[in-house]
Amino acid sequence: MKTLIAIDWGTTSLRAALLDEQGHVKEERASPQGILAIAPGGFPDAFNALCKGWQSRDSLALMSGMVGSRQGWMEAPYCPCPAGFDDIARQLAWVEPGRVAIVPGMSCERDGVPDVMRGEEVQVFGALRLLGLIDATVVLPGTHSKWVTVRGGRIESFATWMTGEFYALLRQHSILSRTLPAQDGELDIAAFDRGVDRALQTASLLGSAFSARTLSLFEQLPAAALPSYLSGLVIGEELRAQAPQTSAVVVMGSPALTQRYDRALAHCGIATQHIGAQATWQGLWAIARTLGETA
Amino acid sequence: MKTLIAIDWGTTSLRAALLDEQGHVKEERASPQGILAIAPGGFPDAFNALCKGWQSRDSLALMSGMVGSRQGWMEAPYCPCPAGFDDIARQLAWVEPGRVAIVPGMSCERDGVPDVMRGEEVQVFGALRLLGLIDATVVLPGTHSKWVTVRGGRIESFATWMTGEFYALLRQHSILSRTLPAQDGELDIAAFDRGVDRALQTASLLGSAFSARTLSLFEQLPAAALPSYLSGLVIGEELRAQAPQTSAVVVMGSPALTQRYDRALAHCGIATQHIGAQATWQGLWAIARTLGETA
Repeated sequence: MKTLIAIDWGTTSLRAALLDEQGHVKEERASPQGILAIAPGGFPDAFNALCKGWQSRDSLALMSGMVGSRQGWMEAPYCPCPAGFDDIARQLAWVEPGRVAIVPGMSCERDGVPDVMRGEEVQVFGALRLLGLIDATVVLPGTHSKWVTVRGGRIESFATWMTGEFYALLRQHSILSRTLPAQDGELDIAAFDRGVDRALQTASLLGSAFSARTLSLFEQLPAAALPSYLSGLVIGEELRAQAPQTSAVVVMGSPALTQRYDRALAHCGIATQHIGAQATWQGLWAIARTLGETA
Repeated sequence: MKTLIAIDWGTTSLRAALLDEQGHVKEERASPQGILAIAPGGFPDAFNALCKGWQSRDSLALMSGMVGSRQGWMEAPYCPCPAGFDDIARQLAWVEPGRVAIVPGMSCERDGVPDVMRGEEVQVFGALRLLGLIDATVVLPGTHSKWVTVRGGRIESFATWMTGEFYALLRQHSILSRTLPAQDGELDIAAFDRGVDRALQTASLLGSAFSARTLSLFEQLPAAALPSYLSGLVIGEELRAQAPQTSAVVVMGSPALTQRYDRALAHCGIATQHIGAQATWQGLWAIARTLGETA
C-alpha cells in the first residue's frame, strides 16, 4: 500500500483524506453528500467523484460511519463488544476486494437491550493511539452522544444518549420554541451552568425542560439566555444519567461542544483531555497498516 | 344567579356547558377555537358566538384555562400554592364585573424554580367534591401532565411533566419517526408494558428512547409495536421521575390515556380512581355558588 484514502461517511456529512505511507494527511475533502443524500445505487459514483485523482493501482480506501448501515453502500455487520482494534480490522466488509472496504460498527448490550455505533469506534481507536492510552472513558458529544469505556485497549461497552437530538427537538418543535429567540447567539455561560446544575438536581428532562418556560414566564431568565440554559439542561441530563465513575475523560468533538462538555464535566469534578477530527484518519490508517502486515 | 355558563378555554380547544341552579348540565358545546386560534381583540366575539342564546340578565360566565394567560383574553395572576378552593374563588379576574370572570391558575416553587398550571386546578377541586375527598394525589395526563398533591382540601404543590409533548416530538420529528409506522394503531399492551418497564430501570429518556431504534434494528420489536413501546417509555419515565409515595391516585383524562396510566401505575403497585370531564363543570359551579353566598 502506497496511499490510503480514508473516508468518514455519515448520515449527513462526508469527509475524506488522502494519507501517505507514514500516515501524514496530504489532502482533505468534504462534501454535504451524507448517506441520506445518496440515491439508491448512487454510492459508487459519489465515491469516485469524491476520490477523483486519488485512486491508483496500489491505493486502498477505508470507510467508516453510517455508510456501512442497512441504508448505506453495503451493510457491514456490527462487531459485538468487548472488541479490540484487531477485531474490527479483521471484519471489514469489502466493496471491492483488496481495494475498497467498510469498517464495521460496534454493538453492545445492557439489561437485554442492544446499543450500536458506527464510525465512533474508529475515532476512539485513533484517539487511543494518538494519546498513547489503553484505558479510558471517551465521550463523543453530538446528535447521539456516545460514552465509550475502554479497558486494556478493547472497547468494553458504550452508551448512546440522544442529547443533541433532544436539544434540536425542544429548540425547534416544542412549546419552548415560541419563547426562545430565533438564533442561539453566543453561549451565556451563567445560564448554561444554571441549566447543568438544574439537570443534575432533577430526575428527568421531562420536568426540567418545563423550567425553561416558567423561568422565562416569571422573568427569572431573559429569552436570549434560554438556548444556553436549555443546552445546559440536556448536557447536564446526559451527565446525570451516565453517572461517570471516573476522574478524567477524553472528549472528541467540535470546539463549541467540547467547551460546553468541559464546563459541565468540571462541575462534576471530572477533568478532560481533547482530541480532534484527525483521530478518524489515524484510526483508519492503523487499520490499513494491519492489512499490510498480514498480507 | 339562575344559570352558570362554564367554560374551559385551553390553548387548542374550547368547551362550554350551561348549568342550572342545581349544577345540572343542560347543554354542552365545543369548538376548535383554542386561544391560539383567536386573533388579537377577538375574544369577546368568540365568547358571544359560543354562548349564543345562553346569556341572560342573571347568568354568570366563569372561564378556566389558558384564557387567563398573557396570551389569553385577560391575564388572571397565578394563585400561589398552597391554596384552597376559596383562595381561587376570591381571586377571579373580572372581564365584565359580576357577569364574566376568569379563574386564576396556580403557581408553586420547587428548589427555587417556578411551576404553573391553568385549568387543572378547577378540575382538581371539582374532582375532590365529586369524590368527597380532601386528601389526594391527582394525576392529569396530557401534553403537559400534572401531578397535584392535595392535603386538607388545599392544593399543596404540583409538578409538570412534558410527557405528551415529548411523545409527539419523538413520534413526529426525531430519528425514530423514520422507523415508526405512519399511524399509531391499537395499543400493543405487551410493547407498552415493556416500555414502562425499561423506563423504570433506566436513568433518562435520553438513553431509553434510543432503544426504540435498536430494538427495531435487531428485530426484537416489530415496527407496528414501536408507538406503544415509545408511549410506555415516556409514561414510565414520568412515573420514575415523579416517584409517587402513595398507594392510590385519582386519574383524570381521556379513556385512551387513563387506560395507559392505569397499567403503568399498577406496575408500580398504585391503585387508581377515575373522574371525567364533568369535574371542570362541577368545579366552576362550586365557585359560582361561593359568589352567590357571599354576594
